[in-house]
Order: sequence, then C-alpha cells, then structure tokens
Amino acid sequence: MAKMRFDVLTLFPEMFHGFLNSSIIKRAHEKGIVQTNLVNFREFAKDRHRTVDDTPYGGGGGMVLKPEPIFEAVDHLLQDVSDRPPIVLMSPQGEPFTQRKAEALARHSHLIFICGHYEGYDERIRQYLCTEEISIGDYVLTGGELPAMVVMDSVTRLIPGVLGNEVSAVTDSFSTGLLEHPHYTRPAEYRGYRVPEVLLSGHHRNIEKWRRQESLRRTWERRPDLLKSVELTPEDKAFLQSLERVQGKRE
Amino acid sequence: MAKMRFDVLTLFPEMFHGFLNSSIIKRAHEKGIVQTNLVNFREFAKDRHRTVDDTPYGGGGGMVLKPEPIFEAVDHLLQDVSDRPPIVLMSPQGEPFTQRKAEALARHSHLIFICGHYEGYDERIRQYLCTEEISIGDYVLTGGELPAMVVMDSVTRLIPGVLGNEVSAVTDSFSTGLLEHPHYTRPAEYRGYRVPEVLLSGHHRNIEKWRRQESLRRTWERRPDLLKSVELTPEDKAFLQSLERVQGKRE
Repeated sequence: MAKMRFDVLTLFPEMFHGFLNSSIIKRAHEKGIVQTNLVNFREFAKDRHRTVDDTPYGGGGGMVLKPEPIFEAVDHLLQDVSDRPPIVLMSPQGEPFTQRKAEALARHSHLIFICGHYEGYDERIRQYLCTEEISIGDYVLTGGELPAMVVMDSVTRLIPGVLGNEVSAVTDSFSTGLLEHPHYTRPAEYRGYRVPEVLLSGHHRNIEKWRRQESLRRTWERRPDLLKSVELTPEDKAFLQSLERVQGKRE
Repeated sequence: MAKMRFDVLTLFPEMFHGFLNSSIIKRAHEKGIVQTNLVNFREFAKDRHRTVDDTPYGGGGGMVLKPEPIFEAVDHLLQDVSDRPPIVLMSPQGEPFTQRKAEALARHSHLIFICGHYEGYDERIRQYLCTEEISIGDYVLTGGELPAMVVMDSVTRLIPGVLGNEVSAVTDSFSTGLLEHPHYTRPAEYRGYRVPEVLLSGHHRNIEKWRRQESLRRTWERRPDLLKSVELTPEDKAFLQSLERVQGKRE
C-alpha cells in the first residue's frame, strides 16, 4: 500500500500531467510510495450544464465556486476511508506554507487538496469542509493547481524511501535554518572566473569554516529575518559581529 | 510580435507541458501575447555524455550544475537580442517573490528563467550570469521548474490583454493589501449552512461595510503583518480597535 495518497480536486487535471510524469514524483509513483488521484469536481455538478460556479451574493464581479460539487466530491473520496484526512484548501488567504508545514503534512498518509481556478470559493467550503488553508506566497496566481503541486512536491521529498542518494544535503536549504553556502564544480577557471582557492586546497577544516561563514554572510545579507531562529555558536556570533563592524565603517 | 517572451532553461521541459496547455496561459499563447521557449541546457553540454553536473570542489555530497552548459545556452538565446533581458535564477536563496516583484517583471518584454534540479548551481552562474535570484517561499522543492511556472503564471496575468472579463477583482487578493472578504453564492442554504443575511438584503451600503470589515477581520486574525502597509480609514481603525477590545476582554 502506498505510504501517501494525494487526492486533488481540480477543474484542470491535465495541468498535473507534466508534473506527475517527471523526476522524483514520477519515481515515487512508480515505486508505489505515492498514489495520486486527480478528481475533476465538475463531474459532481448535478445540472445539465455541470455548473461549478455562480455569481456572488451581494453583487460584484467575478464568479464564486459553488459548495455542492466540492462537498460531494469530498464525500465520494471519503466513502471508504476510516480516518478523515486533512482537507487542504489552496488559497492566497491561507497560512503561509513553510518547510515545517511540509514536514507536518508528510506525517499523514492521505491528503486532499482543493484547487480553485480564477474564482473565489463559497465561504462554506472554507468553513465547514476544509481543515487547513495554505498559501504558498503573497502573489496572485491563476488557480490553486501550481500551489498544490508545490505542496505535493515538497511533501513527497520528505516521505521515507523517495529520495535516493543522488539527492543530498546540497538541496537542503532550510535544514540548518541558514541559506546555503556557494557551491563550485569544474572547471577551476571558466571565462576568467576562478573557484576560491580555499576549495582547491584540500584543507577540510578551512573548507568547513569558509562554508559556514559564507552561509552566515549570505543569510545576513539577504534574509536577516532567518537568523533569529538559528542556533549560533560563539564563533558564528563573532563572525556576524565582524560583518556588522565592516558595514558600520562603510556607512 | 508577442508582448512577452519567456525563455526557460530546464533539464525537464516536459514538466511545463500541462501548465502551458491550460487555461489563461494557453490562451495568452494562442492570442500571440506570450511566447515561451523551453531550452534543455543539456544540449549545450559538449562532452559525449552531455554532462551537466559534477561533484563539488571542497568535497561533500550532492552534485553541482556546471557553468558551461548554462552560460552557453544563454549566449545562444541572446545572439539576436539587442537588449539584455533579466536573467532569473530560481533558487531558495533568492529574493522572496511578491506581487510587487511580479509587477516589475511584467514590465519587461523578455525574461530568461534558469531552473536547477536536485543540484546546487556553480556559484559563477549566480554571480556573473544571472541578474536576479528569486525564491517563491521558504520550503525545499525538487527543482526550479514549479517556481518558474509560478512566476510565469503571476506575470502573465498582468500583461495587458491576457485577462478577459471573466476574471475580476475577486481574484485580486493583494490589490487592497488586505486578505479578501468571504464570498457566497447559491444556494442560500446548503446542508444547514446559511449565507449571512446581510448579503441577501440587497442593501448595498451595508454589504460594502460588511465586506470591508470581514476583510479587515481576516487580515487581523491571520496576517497582521500585512496591516502595516495598508492605508486605513478612520472607520477601519475604529473597527480594528473594537476587535482588539474584544480580544482583550477574552484574555
């Protein structure tokens, strides 16, 4: 049995095909670790035109996704399920998605995602059906499909057995809480741009020190907000203070 | 001529097919407003095995994307281009993506996206080739492909002529700087859950007031960080103060 079942409610199931047929996600499916069901909730609309949206009460432009097709699609998915899974609404009003949230979702064995497209959702879907509401960031997208793929991708990577040895700490940007240090590979010189000497030295302690400092420097320069939640050694703190002194002199 | 040209450097061009063939993005291409070129930079690797990555200098696990194939793919794309476009590296170390950033990118007529997969990038790509580095959020993904699609989707929506009347203010979560108020559509009662009376009243001033207050309430509850950068009327401020008083009494 798969370790994770994803059910995705969407009006555009074809948007997921490239994603599901590539790379790590494809392999997780081939290995039977993950199983994904794409459910077009238009099939649960009862009228002849299979209507999924309608104009908003109170007026104003735009269309709003009706409650019935989505409630009934979820009922259908839960009919032989004993434990109610998290039902996640993809929405710019949701809780901001983080690596910690991905870890929490990866501990489940079944997740349902609801993706809207263009429209808003009838509030009753949000209030009485969904258990979570997630936003991947403060920007406006055409629909919830790309956000659902983002969440599925980050969750899938965390399921035991999915990642092989080809994927390593190099990708684990948020594991230390700092931004990653720079990486270099061959050639040692390209178009006149050289790899830093220390990395060619073979001196492991110096290399480790350089990497830690560059990781600190980059975080300090670009995302000082992240430094608050990182455990820093006395050496780290001394290095950050030296950066601040240099900046102080420049100003 | 298209108003926007997207060039996407990726080892997994097939990941984009579902995205490019759906919805608003598809129509923007059909209308000739947007043109997308998917470039597999593996084709620019010179050796027999078309190697795109190599082990990192200084040791450690994981693979690092080599500079040559990516530099040369970009050279190829720029050969008949007079104005150098932004060259955007998709990376968790980048500047956090926002709606404001989408608006800035949408003012260009040509954008190049570089997507890594699994690996880190050789630092020289970041330092000497790219002009921007964007992260869509603080979570770890398999590659830069989904992030590039997220940026392309949000930028495409902003290009004049792309959105028809079917898409309205309903989707414009970040236009007021507040989270959206709730939406409701028919039926007025579903599974015992009723639409708020005010929306059925036809009293437009009350509806507008209710919507503004629910928008303020939701932002105050979920994303108080957003309130700092919103212009509030004296009425808005009074309403927020009333929420704070209620909370104060509960505590």
